[in-house]
Amino acid sequence: MSRTIYLDGQWLPEAEAKVSAFDRGFLMGDAIYEVTCVLDGALLDYPGHAARLRRSAAELQLTLPLDDDELLALHHEIVARNNMSSGMIYLQLSRGAAERDFAFPPEGTPPTLFLFTQEKDVLVNPAADKGISVALVPDLRWGRRDIKTVQLLYPSMAKMEAKSRGADDAWLVEDGFVTEGSAATAHIVNADGVLVTRDLSAALLPGVTRAAILELAAEHGVTIEERAFTPDEARAAREAFITSATNFVVPVVKIDGETIGNGIPGDLTRAMRAAYIETRRTTALAPTKPVATA
Amino acid sequence: MSRTIYLDGQWLPEAEAKVSAFDRGFLMGDAIYEVTCVLDGALLDYPGHAARLRRSAAELQLTLPLDDDELLALHHEIVARNNMSSGMIYLQLSRGAAERDFAFPPEGTPPTLFLFTQEKDVLVNPAADKGISVALVPDLRWGRRDIKTVQLLYPSMAKMEAKSRGADDAWLVEDGFVTEGSAATAHIVNADGVLVTRDLSAALLPGVTRAAILELAAEHGVTIEERAFTPDEARAAREAFITSATNFVVPVVKIDGETIGNGIPGDLTRAMRAAYIETRRTTALAPTKPVATA
Repeated sequence: MSRTIYLDGQWLPEAEAKVSAFDRGFLMGDAIYEVTCVLDGALLDYPGHAARLRRSAAELQLTLPLDDDELLALHHEIVARNNMSSGMIYLQLSRGAAERDFAFPPEGTPPTLFLFTQEKDVLVNPAADKGISVALVPDLRWGRRDIKTVQLLYPSMAKMEAKSRGADDAWLVEDGFVTEGSAATAHIVNADGVLVTRDLSAALLPGVTRAAILELAAEHGVTIEERAFTPDEARAAREAFITSATNFVVPVVKIDGETIGNGIPGDLTRAMRAAYIETRRTTALAPTKPVATA
Repeated sequence: MSRTIYLDGQWLPEAEAKVSAFDRGFLMGDAIYEVTCVLDGALLDYPGHAARLRRSAAELQLTLPLDDDELLALHHEIVARNNMSSGMIYLQLSRGAAERDFAFPPEGTPPTLFLFTQEKDVLVNPAADKGISVALVPDLRWGRRDIKTVQLLYPSMAKMEAKSRGADDAWLVEDGFVTEGSAATAHIVNADGVLVTRDLSAALLPGVTRAAILELAAEHGVTIEERAFTPDEARAAREAFITSATNFVVPVVKIDGETIGNGIPGDLTRAMRAAYIETRRTTALAPTKPVATA
């Protein structure tokens, strides 16, 4: 079944989703994106994703051509048009089509705004039950990973490298510390039961799910250390897991072939996944709810 | 006047140059490019650009859907169709359109090949006569700059940063050494007349014009040191210049506001520019010449 996508004010069948080959998103990686999870047709953690989108845009002097209400309405509408119950909404904003030049195009060049959906049962996830294996790969990405740009070639290469080594995904390592996963935040629970999560900086994305998990862990009385951790600490951890918008919380049970803890998803990991789903369902923005002011 | 562009086997007016919004070049920066200069309708340093394109593709497991003869013929044809005498040919190859996934798409997914031209009088260049000023900007690009990918957001940001500081362009600095310009190789000539150019590594692009200049400088009896140099060495240099496919050799006369040498284009810089143009004209591939085997 063909999806209905949104492109620059138009609703189109996905086959007609065409952008200019002169778009700076295509020619120069000059674009940002955001992914919001949909469950029961409602938007999970939407305010966090909307805020991060605005932050990414501001960091790059990109202009989002929608106000907060319009942006939210667009998210609801793409769910409705695709009759989607569970999955994700992908939004990309580029600096638009212009004659190719390293200098930004003239002010007033219309940006390109593209949204599409991917259907997926976000609750039923074998990886959440069994856990995944990760391979450690050097982090060669650019220096502003706090901005969610489409410059994703390296994470993609890292994922392929991990797969070629028999792992499900990659954890990236820089200067002797884990930065994050290829498309997720990396967390460990050490022998003392402390949740260790890298502190925010330009080295990693400020994960929306990461923030939620830290809040939930604190509510559960878990001690939290926000600091970088080493691959050795990760290998010696009692539990390890990743967080992301559409995977929520997924256990990591092997790192470079070494079993973490007893090789099955850990208690805190499972508790965090359950708590995340429960609390986010409660706060999810359903289309029938009145639009909250941002 | 509308240009004729090439896109996946079709010759189209530029307004019809549209790619799928699901193209991995647009969604993930998963694309490479190459720029070849055109002078008198002929291709300058073409074998070097074709070889680098193949190398970039191989590094990323991208497949160029053309053999050497077809690739050369395409370059000649786009010049002819645009009746272009002087300027550049831009070629981009992406991994093609596929459902968005960090994993590479299935084998057999057709790549996207896009070529367009930009007309420009490459011989008449005020920057070559007067020189340019550069600002030093931290190099925050990814770790595989030897591959010519479209992940150009940071060089673009660096150029804007340089302009905001009153300079014409940026030189990027990492770990205390100059890596290269935003879109050009950086060179200095020190007080002893030695040409210092950074040695090749993953830190910078293997410049086709860089290679030509090193060859020409050696022929002129210039001592060459291929090694990284510091901003201090650059500021103390007798001459400084950049090289690139369409700018050839352009003097740098100011670095972060400090005058280099006596503030006018240096002798070696001017000699190298003249020698480059003269020799490349001789070896340029004109459309009427028989196609050389690669």
